[in-house]
Amino acid sequence: MSDGTREIEALIDAMARLPGLGPRSARRAVLHLMARRATLMAPMAELMGHVAEAVRDCARCGNLGTGDLCAVCADPARATGEICVVEDVADLWAMERGRAFRGRYHVLGGVLSALDAVGPDELRIPLLLERVRDEGVTEVILALNATVDGQTTAHYIAEALEDRGVQVTSLAQGVPIGGELDYLDDGTIQAALRARKRV
Amino acid sequence: MSDGTREIEALIDAMARLPGLGPRSARRAVLHLMARRATLMAPMAELMGHVAEAVRDCARCGNLGTGDLCAVCADPARATGEICVVEDVADLWAMERGRAFRGRYHVLGGVLSALDAVGPDELRIPLLLERVRDEGVTEVILALNATVDGQTTAHYIAEALEDRGVQVTSLAQGVPIGGELDYLDDGTIQAALRARKRV
Repeated sequence: MSDGTREIEALIDAMARLPGLGPRSARRAVLHLMARRATLMAPMAELMGHVAEAVRDCARCGNLGTGDLCAVCADPARATGEICVVEDVADLWAMERGRAFRGRYHVLGGVLSALDAVGPDELRIPLLLERVRDEGVTEVILALNATVDGQTTAHYIAEALEDRGVQVTSLAQGVPIGGELDYLDDGTIQAALRARKRV
Repeated sequence: MSDGTREIEALIDAMARLPGLGPRSARRAVLHLMARRATLMAPMAELMGHVAEAVRDCARCGNLGTGDLCAVCADPARATGEICVVEDVADLWAMERGRAFRGRYHVLGGVLSALDAVGPDELRIPLLLERVRDEGVTEVILALNATVDGQTTAHYIAEALEDRGVQVTSLAQGVPIGGELDYLDDGTIQAALRARKRV
């Protein structure tokens, strides 16, 4: 680096650890910031500091928020009878963008994985069972990724909730809206065919 | 956004203005940061704040640094007789990574452009002429991009330096190291052929 200051290099190293940025693009981003240090860099630093300080895990569902409870759990308009189980906060945000679900969430913080030695107690599964017992839950919707580990986790939770008087469902699998058959993988086509509906 | 806090959204918006990041990847980056708020996000915010406050344009060459003079200009080991003219700080950094040049720089802050109404006085060209007069400069190396505007700017500077008793050179054009002829554009092949050397 031409500039001797260690802080600039440290900032580039830190930025390079963000997903989607490598060492090259981190350098470009930092240069971009330094060229706009009053209008973009200083405000971003301040925002980032505030958020880093204010953000915490929701004590109930594991979502990120700025209070003890996240915005979803704190919203009295959200139905308490339905819990949508997701792997991580990114998935929760994706569900919220869909604006279709008006219940509450439970963020597992990962999925079961024999390979990575992730068991139920490493995830927030015991907390989920507590919530189902205590919150008058009538339906648990499993919105886990359609990967092997995601589906293993879904099965595990479905079994753990058997005989608890709660309905367990999962997201439908099929052709994505706007999806072209020609570009779909075989598994999706098979799943969509098995779940075919009368028109 | 699921989380009601405006600051998180504002941070995502700010991150999305970085080169190489869009709204989607900015959201991923902010989630990544919030999941590592003690180890990555808070330190990054602090670094970014420090750099935003400390960084300034070098009074002499226009490089970014933390003092009145940048690290290159402040280094007594750098030859004062040679000035390498670059369009922006990113190009200066690229030259420094090459570790081949031991002189000093002059950052123009752009290139001449009739379309964008950028004339010599919008760039740091008058300052360059002053430096050539005052610093005992013997050679000005034009390291400008091989674009139309870059080459127009190079010609303009070369003319402005005529009869000043200073040698004006430019980077050689030719086949990049490791470059395959088959993938090169015609202009590069033509330039490399014109500049061919006896082996």
